Amino acid sequence: MSPAPRRPPRPRSPERRPAARREGGLGGDQVEGRRAVLELLLVGRRRTRKVVVAEAQESSDQLDAIEVAARDRRVPVAFVSKARLDREARTEGNQGVYALCDPIRSTPLEELAEGGAGTPAFLLVGDGLTDPRNLGALLRSAECAGVTGVVLPSHRSVRLSPAVTKTAAGAIEHLRFASVAGVPTALRDLDRLGVLTVGLAPEARRSLYDLDLAGAAVALVIGGEERGLGRLARERCREVVAIPQLGAIASLNAAVAGAVACFEVARQRRAARRR
Amino acid sequence: MSPAPRRPPRPRSPERRPAARREGGLGGDQVEGRRAVLELLLVGRRRTRKVVVAEAQESSDQLDAIEVAARDRRVPVAFVSKARLDREARTEGNQGVYALCDPIRSTPLEELAEGGAGTPAFLLVGDGLTDPRNLGALLRSAECAGVTGVVLPSHRSVRLSPAVTKTAAGAIEHLRFASVAGVPTALRDLDRLGVLTVGLAPEARRSLYDLDLAGAAVALVIGGEERGLGRLARERCREVVAIPQLGAIASLNAAVAGAVACFEVARQRRAARRR
Repeated sequence: MSPAPRRPPRPRSPERRPAARREGGLGGDQVEGRRAVLELLLVGRRRTRKVVVAEAQESSDQLDAIEVAARDRRVPVAFVSKARLDREARTEGNQGVYALCDPIRSTPLEELAEGGAGTPAFLLVGDGLTDPRNLGALLRSAECAGVTGVVLPSHRSVRLSPAVTKTAAGAIEHLRFASVAGVPTALRDLDRLGVLTVGLAPEARRSLYDLDLAGAAVALVIGGEERGLGRLARERCREVVAIPQLGAIASLNAAVAGAVACFEVARQRRAARRR
Repeated sequence: MSPAPRRPPRPRSPERRPAARREGGLGGDQVEGRRAVLELLLVGRRRTRKVVVAEAQESSDQLDAIEVAARDRRVPVAFVSKARLDREARTEGNQGVYALCDPIRSTPLEELAEGGAGTPAFLLVGDGLTDPRNLGALLRSAECAGVTGVVLPSHRSVRLSPAVTKTAAGAIEHLRFASVAGVPTALRDLDRLGVLTVGLAPEARRSLYDLDLAGAAVALVIGGEERGLGRLARERCREVVAIPQLGAIASLNAAVAGAVACFEVARQRRAARRR
């Protein structure tokens, strides 16, 4: 039996969900896990309304850093029981902390396609990724590899849910996102904007490693866990390539395949800069 | 309230655990998840004593294939209620099936170092990996990249638990494992056996991409999630390299870093064969 709360729990929807929808449905307004909340505060790209921390946790440098960063930014920090935090949080791996903040805003495709800081655009397009942990892991790896923008469909895809924010470990604060009505249309638009669209498909004949990915703006298109790239999305990709697999099981996880491809782009670009 | 079982549940330890310990403590004697159980049966490298399937599941090609493969190999299949299977299984993602089988046997380092089929050895050494999902994911990616052998310490490491077998999605049946008393000693032995030992460390100065990994037998050494490579293991590596990271968060997950490094070895070997 849980003790009766002192005041009735605040309803979840009215203030957060409609805002997220207005912004293109990307979500991201509840961030969970220590690293993710710390990056949210340190990057400060979006307004954080509140940080909620579970009482009586073992001392932790990350929790201390979160409290300091919240104080610096005048973000209120509420301490609640572990049981209450676990009820309010939406992931099991919340590590005793979550934050409420503005949702992620959608950036126009044209802006994503421009790249930045003298580097051609390096984008990731998710086509039907439905597993939040996979999307979160992919965003984390992609950011490490230098991806600057992510395109996600507003339907048939996970939003930037608390589980995604947790697994992405703060990567979301450093990426720009475009929410699009359909991936095939977005791929046509990216092509027109001079971005090389490269779909990953295990059954493709061409190898990822045979592409020159060093010079041009590039968008890697990653299909969903079960069905891979949609037919129309695949047709709209300028190139469709596979990561050659040498083992017997030949079933690379979608997030890992995406990470390997992202780091291949990074490797080629780095090698080209040295020449 | 769960219904009283018809017969008392069989104690788990007496027959399985000691066997696992005798074999060097690698475990692997309870395999969970559809793909993992199917590979166990299809590869048939170790004896499967029993397959347990939850009743009243939606029809599934993979479950059908498991039943056919079990019948072909004269492995008994027991059908139990979903509730009972969930009690007996040790992972939440068991997908309604698990198998009991012989544990994974340890292979001598000398055999792993030999490689096979005209290809120099391609090994993975785990130094203090403690997260079963990370180890499982890494084994799956490694097998896809062509890794043939895995070295794990018998202490301070996850065994091939049901969670590892589930996440590895059958990769375990295609890999050989060496259980070693200590990673530093194993690295010295591998070095003497002519295997290039390459440690991954985010803070290393040298880049993974500056190594020639195409010709020689190679062992990639992956550190634990929290503390990375141990000091002594690091000193015993012939090379210590980083995967250059371009993003802001620079905290690649250990399993993803391992996967990226494995696919770099595969890329270089493939490129060398074409020359």
